[in-house]
Amino acid sequence: MPEFQRPRGTRDFGPEEMAKRRFVESNMRETASTFGFGEVMTPTFESTDLFIARSGEDIVNEMYAFEDKGGRNIALRPELTASVMRFYVNEMQSLPKPVKVFYFGNMFRYERPQAGRYREFFQFGAELIGAPSIEADAEVIALAMQSIKSLGMDDAVVRIGHLSILQSLFEDIGVPENQQVACRRLIDKQDYDGLKNLLAEISIDNSETLIQIIKIKGGKDAIAQAQELTSAGEDGFTYLADLLNRLEAYGFSNCTVDFGVARGLDYYTGMVFEIDAPSLGAEKQICGGGAYKLADLFGGQEVNSTGYAFGFDRIMLALENSGVEVPSQKLDAYILPIGDSARTAATEILMKLRNAGISSDMDLMGRNMSKAMKYANNIGSQKVIIIGQKELDEKSVTVRDMESGEQELVPISKILDYNFK
Amino acid sequence: MPEFQRPRGTRDFGPEEMAKRRFVESNMRETASTFGFGEVMTPTFESTDLFIARSGEDIVNEMYAFEDKGGRNIALRPELTASVMRFYVNEMQSLPKPVKVFYFGNMFRYERPQAGRYREFFQFGAELIGAPSIEADAEVIALAMQSIKSLGMDDAVVRIGHLSILQSLFEDIGVPENQQVACRRLIDKQDYDGLKNLLAEISIDNSETLIQIIKIKGGKDAIAQAQELTSAGEDGFTYLADLLNRLEAYGFSNCTVDFGVARGLDYYTGMVFEIDAPSLGAEKQICGGGAYKLADLFGGQEVNSTGYAFGFDRIMLALENSGVEVPSQKLDAYILPIGDSARTAATEILMKLRNAGISSDMDLMGRNMSKAMKYANNIGSQKVIIIGQKELDEKSVTVRDMESGEQELVPISKILDYNFK
Repeated sequence: MPEFQRPRGTRDFGPEEMAKRRFVESNMRETASTFGFGEVMTPTFESTDLFIARSGEDIVNEMYAFEDKGGRNIALRPELTASVMRFYVNEMQSLPKPVKVFYFGNMFRYERPQAGRYREFFQFGAELIGAPSIEADAEVIALAMQSIKSLGMDDAVVRIGHLSILQSLFEDIGVPENQQVACRRLIDKQDYDGLKNLLAEISIDNSETLIQIIKIKGGKDAIAQAQELTSAGEDGFTYLADLLNRLEAYGFSNCTVDFGVARGLDYYTGMVFEIDAPSLGAEKQICGGGAYKLADLFGGQEVNSTGYAFGFDRIMLALENSGVEVPSQKLDAYILPIGDSARTAATEILMKLRNAGISSDMDLMGRNMSKAMKYANNIGSQKVIIIGQKELDEKSVTVRDMESGEQELVPISKILDYNFK
Repeated sequence: MPEFQRPRGTRDFGPEEMAKRRFVESNMRETASTFGFGEVMTPTFESTDLFIARSGEDIVNEMYAFEDKGGRNIALRPELTASVMRFYVNEMQSLPKPVKVFYFGNMFRYERPQAGRYREFFQFGAELIGAPSIEADAEVIALAMQSIKSLGMDDAVVRIGHLSILQSLFEDIGVPENQQVACRRLIDKQDYDGLKNLLAEISIDNSETLIQIIKIKGGKDAIAQAQELTSAGEDGFTYLADLLNRLEAYGFSNCTVDFGVARGLDYYTGMVFEIDAPSLGAEKQICGGGAYKLADLFGGQEVNSTGYAFGFDRIMLALENSGVEVPSQKLDAYILPIGDSARTAATEILMKLRNAGISSDMDLMGRNMSKAMKYANNIGSQKVIIIGQKELDEKSVTVRDMESGEQELVPISKILDYNFK
């Protein structure tokens, strides 16, 4: 029994998993770069107040919040939008607009660990700050869709809503302003009974149209379907139709609307969207985002922003579930010097290969031939290079293909001509 | 005045700096992979006890240590060797040896912020676990040297020592065992007066040879020079001579010995080394490492290990100081649709370029020609693509090279043949 365990709800990642995670991270970074977004990084902890300003006092109960030795209240970040907007307000407000940034980072939440929910988890997100809303919304949704398309995930579904539609529907049936966020949260959780009960409590009984509309999902026809049910929310419907057209020009012609997308947080202002990976089953959401205003809350000038965050751990799971091949790392060559006299020549060949970008390793354990072959097989090395006295005499090495079992004598001077990849 | 500031001693990184940092990180990861090392990642916080076991009770004063909501004592990691060895003991002990792992991560220390010292900082490190010591030591130092060579840092100096030499010298003059670590710490700080005083306090006055030897630095001749001064430490001297020979076979013929390398921590057992970047001036050390035993301390089986950690922030600074070019990100093309009728065609071209890996952006602000040119210049875009009615009529776009100012009409169907890179 080991003496120390990792903290509850956290993970250790071994080499195979890390190679896959880094591949996906790089791929997403590359996509964001081709879209002209630049990466930013902020500290792992911030003033607790920053997160309270964004999410309300309750967030403290879900964070790793503590007092540092100087008596300051700090918290491990539970999300990154607040940090990025703090950075924007402090240092990027005077840059020419739009400011287009992305981030990849770890986040923390203090809650009961459960399947697929970790106390330390990872998100890949983007924020577009300071552009007119429809152009920004289209560009940001296109980036999100391109990010998963580039990873080979073909079955993802984006569902787009608009809070002005919900607001109009609320106003239409007389939901008072101070109850609208509570209603949005229930809609966000698809808790329709809860919504009916809440509305009944405040004596609103004509909620059928609202309930019907928030259940509508689909393409452009879904917009027409909703418009037939209500005369409210016209601006929002028109906006979404325009947005779908723009996304078509981006090459994403199968985006859908979903009038029940409500997002739980107060600061979302207009378009809101979510992306699902059907292969994940019930917990299928991999991305959430929308248009928001936060800069003024953090002491800056009010500015239009649109952003999203991908749950990185969910993406990894979705790729696995849908059978998308993510390359893991394999050793190209394992070098076995037979006897001490071969070690210097072996080291030189080793470095020749490594300098050419061929991942290679040398026996450090003094293994004999049969044990070395077993080991090379075990670590998945593609080739084994054997250097004994016979090979040294002929200024050559024996290269064994571990899959076919074929062996070949290759002159040391021509080792880089051999196809190791 | 913004309402929220980032915590003292931490940093925000903007896009230009992040592009450089990611480039260096990828380069180091690539090098470690060609050496057959696999990446691991462990949680950002661990039980406080883990770090106490490695470094002693005093470490608590220098850490962000706190109690979580469940009453557990946890600490933001101040280093990663302890975490990696905890992971090894928990899950990797039964793997075939050697286990070769590397990591890149952030770490935390609570101390007065000062120039170049941050409360959140970054290290890139490697550990080789379970191989005979001289093979492991050579492979690990070679990886460290190759990592900075691959980055184009040519002036780095590795200084290698061996704790058995210090121990023999201590024994030779009668330093009691319980004072040896204190002596090593003074040697590590090059506090020779402090060392003399400590030795005088315990009535040792024949320390001249020790002081002479710990000041010796150089190639193989330095070993001979030390051997002339003492008959102690023979095993260590022989070991270092052998190690220099092995490193020569790795292609690193200018490694040096330095008998004053002592490392401050108790668990180092044999070879110890440091790497300096002369361009950094007084604070020139960028890497420290050595052979150690930690697994048994963490409840595992005793095993030979050798590892090191690079100060990643120091490496970034050293590369800058020595004028090594680290590519930063540039936008390849900025697309300006003139009028709303051109926007759909512009979006399609935009995505054609992005799908081909050409980083490109489109005006989202409705800028006119002269403002768009100024903006494109400002963000460093290499080319501007103009699409107006004239271009639409000719099924073409105007591509302007921002450096030469030359313009060219390019058919939309041939846009990918244009050289944007």
